[in-house]
Amino acid sequence: MKDKLTIVKVGGKIVEDAESLSNLLNDFSQLSGYKVLVHGGGRSATRIATRLGIETKMINGRRITDEDMLQVVTMVYGGLVNKNVVAKLQGLGLNAIGLTGADMDVIRSDKRPVREIDYGFAGDVKSVNGEILAMLIKKNIIPVMAPLTHDGMGHMLNTNADTIAAEIAKSLAKYFDVTLTYCFDRKGVLRDENDENSVINLIDPVIYKKLKEDGVVCGGMLPKMDNAFSAINAGVSQVIITSSEDLSGKYATVIKNK
Amino acid sequence: MKDKLTIVKVGGKIVEDAESLSNLLNDFSQLSGYKVLVHGGGRSATRIATRLGIETKMINGRRITDEDMLQVVTMVYGGLVNKNVVAKLQGLGLNAIGLTGADMDVIRSDKRPVREIDYGFAGDVKSVNGEILAMLIKKNIIPVMAPLTHDGMGHMLNTNADTIAAEIAKSLAKYFDVTLTYCFDRKGVLRDENDENSVINLIDPVIYKKLKEDGVVCGGMLPKMDNAFSAINAGVSQVIITSSEDLSGKYATVIKNK
Repeated sequence: MKDKLTIVKVGGKIVEDAESLSNLLNDFSQLSGYKVLVHGGGRSATRIATRLGIETKMINGRRITDEDMLQVVTMVYGGLVNKNVVAKLQGLGLNAIGLTGADMDVIRSDKRPVREIDYGFAGDVKSVNGEILAMLIKKNIIPVMAPLTHDGMGHMLNTNADTIAAEIAKSLAKYFDVTLTYCFDRKGVLRDENDENSVINLIDPVIYKKLKEDGVVCGGMLPKMDNAFSAINAGVSQVIITSSEDLSGKYATVIKNK
Repeated sequence: MKDKLTIVKVGGKIVEDAESLSNLLNDFSQLSGYKVLVHGGGRSATRIATRLGIETKMINGRRITDEDMLQVVTMVYGGLVNKNVVAKLQGLGLNAIGLTGADMDVIRSDKRPVREIDYGFAGDVKSVNGEILAMLIKKNIIPVMAPLTHDGMGHMLNTNADTIAAEIAKSLAKYFDVTLTYCFDRKGVLRDENDENSVINLIDPVIYKKLKEDGVVCGGMLPKMDNAFSAINAGVSQVIITSSEDLSGKYATVIKNK
């Protein structure tokens, strides 16, 4: 039987507020088994960019990463957010290591091709080195992943944190019994978006099909669900969609293959 | 016989200019044996701080690191400089990993006690985990160290890069035959500071005593030399003081015990 591994992805909103970050890291430290943390940091990047006089351009919720913005996200995600999280986890007695995809060539990406939109230095994940991550994890080291990758030719690339979490989960499914936990600002996938108590507890492919047909799952939830099923189809045991206050996913949505 | 390891320390001036950085990393990639790179980044930190409206305060050439400045150095050293160097080394086919002292608890420091001067969040190195660094190095992974450490209680600390290089060298002397190479803007320790061709090729403790008495070694060179001899007394084979154009130290100053 494989050892349990939980990969937790948290968005910028949680890591950028001192109190919510502190609560989250405390809860994270309590999770049993091996662990990985993947973080965002978009709000901090936007805030620092504004202070530096660099304009933030977004299209359909996605950041346009020109050269100046690449410098900003490299320093904010890879330095400011990542290293503060690592130091805080060390303070809780967890042996964390902060990584971008460039470190040890952990995640290599292709610069996104320019079609209707030029996203600039945005990376689409090409390969993940699960072996080296598994080696660290089995030494009780906790990878803390910033949403940055590299192209193998000397350039950093800005990369979606949800995607990084899913791709890491897939690559580690060979070595561990993987749970992928997406934290966001709701308790789970809601049947009625105005009712926090309408969490759908279990979603499998059959239920998902129905939820899409009925329009219950739509909008921004669709790529998250697609990431989830793509992970499950690649061997990840379960995906949990939960709020940061319920990290163990007790009251959340669990996505499974059957 | 132990395997050879070269630890190269380069200052901010070299890593912050695209062309000199590119030349340096090319030369670094050509060095034979195991390798570690330690970098500065003070000029970038000052530049970004200015753009953010944060004042840079220096006393005797040392940065005063208040809370705002700690955020700046964390993002500039740990993110901007470190990750760009890592991506560039990956582009040259070297499997680099960027680390601060917080990552894997590699370097723990004490916040410098306030005496005449309050340096703020500046760290004095307390312990280095040479074992984990040696493990990575023997897997042909190249640590790229940012001048940041942590206190083990959740806080990052700004730490002198020369000191980090010396402390890492000492902790790795148990595992490797270590050469510590300090790059700066002269060809080596000069007998006559106005003559670039007056490099003193060899300095041992007897010669050093004489050079100090004669006032040849003075000022900013003294702490560098003290770091060097402290490393040698702890088992480092040799310390080279050279320019970034002569990374192998062919025309440089070599400091040895005998």
